[in-house]
Amino acid sequence: MSTASASVLEQFKAPLQLRRPEPGGALVRIEMAGICGTDVHLWKGELPIGLPVILGHETVGRIEQLGEGVETDWTGQPLQVGDRVTWNPSAACGACYYCAEKRLPTRCTSRRAYGIGYKCDQAPHFLGGYAEFHYLRPRTTIFKLPDDLPTESIIGAGCALNTAIHGVERTGISWRDVVVVQGAGPVGISALAVAKSAGAARVIVLGAPKARLELAKRFGADHVIDLDELRTPAERIEVVRRLTGGYGADVVLECAGVPSAVVEGMEMCRDGGRYLVLGHYCDAGPVSWNPHVVTRKQLTVIGSWSSEPRHLKAAMGFLRDNLERFPFAQMVSHRFRLEDANEALATTAAWKSAKSVLVPAGA
Amino acid sequence: MSTASASVLEQFKAPLQLRRPEPGGALVRIEMAGICGTDVHLWKGELPIGLPVILGHETVGRIEQLGEGVETDWTGQPLQVGDRVTWNPSAACGACYYCAEKRLPTRCTSRRAYGIGYKCDQAPHFLGGYAEFHYLRPRTTIFKLPDDLPTESIIGAGCALNTAIHGVERTGISWRDVVVVQGAGPVGISALAVAKSAGAARVIVLGAPKARLELAKRFGADHVIDLDELRTPAERIEVVRRLTGGYGADVVLECAGVPSAVVEGMEMCRDGGRYLVLGHYCDAGPVSWNPHVVTRKQLTVIGSWSSEPRHLKAAMGFLRDNLERFPFAQMVSHRFRLEDANEALATTAAWKSAKSVLVPAGA
Amino acid sequence: MSTASASVLEQFKAPLQLRRPEPGGALVRIEMAGICGTDVHLWKGELPIGLPVILGHETVGRIEQLGEGVETDWTGQPLQVGDRVTWNPSAACGACYYCAEKRLPTRCTSRRAYGIGYKCDQAPHFLGGYAEFHYLRPRTTIFKLPDDLPTESIIGAGCALNTAIHGVERTGISWRDVVVVQGAGPVGISALAVAKSAGAARVIVLGAPKARLELAKRFGADHVIDLDELRTPAERIEVVRRLTGGYGADVVLECAGVPSAVVEGMEMCRDGGRYLVLGHYCDAGPVSWNPHVVTRKQLTVIGSWSSEPRHLKAAMGFLRDNLERFPFAQMVSHRFRLEDANEALATTAAWKSAKSVLVPAGA
Amino acid sequence: MSTASASVLEQFKAPLQLRRPEPGGALVRIEMAGICGTDVHLWKGELPIGLPVILGHETVGRIEQLGEGVETDWTGQPLQVGDRVTWNPSAACGACYYCAEKRLPTRCTSRRAYGIGYKCDQAPHFLGGYAEFHYLRPRTTIFKLPDDLPTESIIGAGCALNTAIHGVERTGISWRDVVVVQGAGPVGISALAVAKSAGAARVIVLGAPKARLELAKRFGADHVIDLDELRTPAERIEVVRRLTGGYGADVVLECAGVPSAVVEGMEMCRDGGRYLVLGHYCDAGPVSWNPHVVTRKQLTVIGSWSSEPRHLKAAMGFLRDNLERFPFAQMVSHRFRLEDANEALATTAAWKSAKSVLVPAGA
Repeated sequence: MSTASASVLEQFKAPLQLRRPEPGGALVRIEMAGICGTDVHLWKGELPIGLPVILGHETVGRIEQLGEGVETDWTGQPLQVGDRVTWNPSAACGACYYCAEKRLPTRCTSRRAYGIGYKCDQAPHFLGGYAEFHYLRPRTTIFKLPDDLPTESIIGAGCALNTAIHGVERTGISWRDVVVVQGAGPVGISALAVAKSAGAARVIVLGAPKARLELAKRFGADHVIDLDELRTPAERIEVVRRLTGGYGADVVLECAGVPSAVVEGMEMCRDGGRYLVLGHYCDAGPVSWNPHVVTRKQLTVIGSWSSEPRHLKAAMGFLRDNLERFPFAQMVSHRFRLEDANEALATTAAWKSAKSVLVPAGA
Repeated sequence: MSTASASVLEQFKAPLQLRRPEPGGALVRIEMAGICGTDVHLWKGELPIGLPVILGHETVGRIEQLGEGVETDWTGQPLQVGDRVTWNPSAACGACYYCAEKRLPTRCTSRRAYGIGYKCDQAPHFLGGYAEFHYLRPRTTIFKLPDDLPTESIIGAGCALNTAIHGVERTGISWRDVVVVQGAGPVGISALAVAKSAGAARVIVLGAPKARLELAKRFGADHVIDLDELRTPAERIEVVRRLTGGYGADVVLECAGVPSAVVEGMEMCRDGGRYLVLGHYCDAGPVSWNPHVVTRKQLTVIGSWSSEPRHLKAAMGFLRDNLERFPFAQMVSHRFRLEDANEALATTAAWKSAKSVLVPAGA
Repeated sequence: MSTASASVLEQFKAPLQLRRPEPGGALVRIEMAGICGTDVHLWKGELPIGLPVILGHETVGRIEQLGEGVETDWTGQPLQVGDRVTWNPSAACGACYYCAEKRLPTRCTSRRAYGIGYKCDQAPHFLGGYAEFHYLRPRTTIFKLPDDLPTESIIGAGCALNTAIHGVERTGISWRDVVVVQGAGPVGISALAVAKSAGAARVIVLGAPKARLELAKRFGADHVIDLDELRTPAERIEVVRRLTGGYGADVVLECAGVPSAVVEGMEMCRDGGRYLVLGHYCDAGPVSWNPHVVTRKQLTVIGSWSSEPRHLKAAMGFLRDNLERFPFAQMVSHRFRLEDANEALATTAAWKSAKSVLVPAGA
Repeated sequence: MSTASASVLEQFKAPLQLRRPEPGGALVRIEMAGICGTDVHLWKGELPIGLPVILGHETVGRIEQLGEGVETDWTGQPLQVGDRVTWNPSAACGACYYCAEKRLPTRCTSRRAYGIGYKCDQAPHFLGGYAEFHYLRPRTTIFKLPDDLPTESIIGAGCALNTAIHGVERTGISWRDVVVVQGAGPVGISALAVAKSAGAARVIVLGAPKARLELAKRFGADHVIDLDELRTPAERIEVVRRLTGGYGADVVLECAGVPSAVVEGMEMCRDGGRYLVLGHYCDAGPVSWNPHVVTRKQLTVIGSWSSEPRHLKAAMGFLRDNLERFPFAQMVSHRFRLEDANEALATTAAWKSAKSVLVPAGA
């Protein structure tokens, strides 16, 4: 085996040479790669990256080769050829101002993500998930998957779950809080699951279309508000207030990515409430907003970016412990071959799937 | 003594009858009343209140009569006729959803403030500071002033200091943080003093005009940025970044009340920084803002409203311990007689004074 | 109706006169009163109180008479004669140093508890739960019980649940923490339930006898350690370490009330872990302890005393939402008539019951 | 230059060969080394370490040689031969359970400290401060000293200041808190300075002998309590209570290292107060202690171990900004030549010096 196929964003140049892993690195044969909403933004050119890129930052595979010195995974478990693994798409340097002094590794100044920040016309080429093989650079945080945790659970949850875990951690849901989740996509569903399992008394989910709200109910939403039925912010704010004794929710988690949702959501908070801006990973442009709301309501507004390796470890335990209660594996609704990556992206872009995945031919 | 004069917002009806304090209440002969920026907003009709009102919520006076049962001040010190006192303009009920369940007394649902929320054509009439006498309702949180704490210190600091103390408490300045203060008015100067005394490594103040920036330097500002010299947000952001190693400040305290300052200030935060929206007590209208900044920079944005009695207690100790280091008494730059209240308001409105005060004839 | 029976600690003097409730007060006809472990301590004279006392601080009853001005319960719901209610046994003053300045109402300087701190030879006499009637003083925080929340749930949970809710709140369990609970009595079982519902990844319970550990399993304990089998601290610490990757638990909740358990439990914490001393409501004497453990392991050790009204509100919601998952009503294992209070206390003292309760004849 | 002298704990074998620094390492010519109280414990054999060891973990020197790849210091400043520098005595691995998952680098499982954890009979030998040269291993966190920060400031503050900064950070002093410091040695004086600069309203220091209390006053202590005058815990607790309105202090910082001080100090806390166990770096044995105090007073008891590089960075800024207010350089009271290391240790052991230092002949 010396060449491998990959779905490359922009035209594919030629079969690329797979090199042996350097010390600290590893080579993985991919079993499944998730299509993330961010991939759609990248595909549409809405985020500034260099091309060509092999997309895909949600990936599960089996160790094909281990570089020298790689003996355990991030949690200290022995790692061997053949092990099924997943990993964080980026690694913090541990030494920069944000890593070392401000303990904010998600804002590491040298952070680059597989499937986003590496051009595949440069060695080691295979640094994205839409491929047969994935090269893992030294310092990649690898996690061995336990046998009772299906690949579909990991990919069904995707980076959305890690993102939600980090966001909810930063927000701080108190036990028995009433929580609103704005958005019923992968991040919203994940935030719902985390909030419910973290002791929220009730979780109200706003979203569309209906299939997503059904999924939200399956994941334990106490109330769902259909954006296709309640079409104005004023109506929706009114319903949330009514459901919360007239005061608003203790915590509102924005998982919509729509700027106007932020303005609407702050009005859904009770005074002294907490508001998480989680869905704005991409720049969706400005909105007309009155900062008086933050003062008057004594809000705390929190941002959260990406996640750390410890969140992925927590996610794995959470998924395994809740296969029934929060069936993330069921979110994998559409499977595509590697060569149908464009169709997979189009399906996700059209909101037709809960989760589309790519499965290489040999996997 | 059965009548008293008062500067009433809207036409003055007639000499009002002072009644004896009911159980739990008190009557105070006013020594000095501060003109707060909020009073200017009220005067201009920019805040929705019922008229007529005796303005003034920053007041020092001497106990004239004590109602039955009032034996000590809020801190437990004995209280007697003749004692010089100040008080919080509003009192929380202690029983509502915000007071009792959410521990947020500043958002008490029945909160009303002296000098703002009481009409003076209804008994007991004298519920504002622009007057010779002030009636203190039962449950008013009264503080006896120590002899070594001048009236000018209390009034010079005014409600701005209490507001800043509460805001900085909610924001959480860490020891050796680099802090930016947007605004050099009373709230900004107060925030500067609190930040410096709370262990900030450096405080950068943005404001205008020059006299205010000189005052900021006198209060320990490490750098001042003159809005009249650096006229664009981009320039000011650039300077703040340069002064902070290229990253931005750990904490930015907005004390300007200008919506665009909020947009500008968030860019002055380092990633993971904390941003306080403190100056937006009034609704100054919307601004075009991109919520992506909160996610991308992992910001925490905090609002703070008014203050609690414990903040006034802390303020009193702080003022007394720092008569030299933070000379708030010197902020009292313009004194007016009660009958010249309009002139006092105009002076404050024109930003001609650091602090204007009213001194009743007999005081 | 003008007299009522009561189980009085110390000899019963004579039928007492029930007076009509003063404004703000209420009279309740008791349906059920729980026997708390603290009652046993009081009964044995291990806590310094004045006698005679009507014991009982876990009580449910129906409103018999409402004093003037009592129109709603603590949450704002309308309150009427005939409503089934419960209440906090003590009320904070809202004005003292701890209530007002330090926001620590559980340490209110004038706090007194029904069933503990009131002598029944003084009017209004009926200030404890082992009786037919209970007088509720003005400022008592009353909660109307929803129809779908059985009396047995409230009494089965008792003050143990409120205590555990407050303790876990102060300790701060993070989502996916590994938790150890020392003790499987009412407080330990409650702490287990709260920890599980608050997102703990796993909860390990140490206790005895076997029946209590079975109950712990029914309430979701992931592991139980039987003190009758593992008889030395060293063995138990070893097992906990083995169950936690060799590091110890993130959080250890002491619900045993035995001083040596505190020394043992700190060794069960991982470095940087959190340790709650919750079971030491009574003074059980000193123990030989090495403070070096706190420094070396960078522990945070937290104490928690009693609870606030908001915890009782949370408990009610929690109980109603989890009738199946956490069946506190099943803990009511032994019912006694009012005149058999001594037998009820003896049963609890002998650890023969999960929860003993008193049911007045007419209820 | 190929040999160098060093004060070796246990018999000195022979002149050792200095090797050139490997990539990432550096060689430093020592200017000054502090004698820390921990060194006395090590010298007396009270801590379990392997011998022979070159003691000394508080060191300033000049870069003699830089290994390949060392271009900047920890803060990103260019580093060159001849630069005056200091460094953290140990470095966290960044990858273990405590470093990566629990963000607790001070408990890194592979942590070893210069001057404590390295035997000098093994290459590279020179890993302690009581020497002419110090070898800095790769990953050592080096800090270039600004010209206006004297070597005496750094050594006078020593690791005590870093320890205090970390401890106070973990404890969380709130602005205007009343603070008690138990102990007036280097850690106590440092804690005093940090507490004062962090906004403490008043700091009360307990200690002995008189010279140390004079130093405490020079560093801003508001009250000092002389252990030689008030000889019983009861007396001292009484005075602290009297100085704190009868309630006790908001925060008590234990910097004494005496187990009985912990029992005494918890009684000096107000209810709901915070208690830092900072002085128990060494195991000084057990004490009879009643855990009921933690529950009854709702205390939070915090441990803190060593410090992180960011604390040293903060210390440097703090020292430079406060050369007058907190004159740590003046603590350097006794200077010794390298060959008089035993005398230096004896002087420190006898509490005769504020701070003893070693100055190599050539420095």
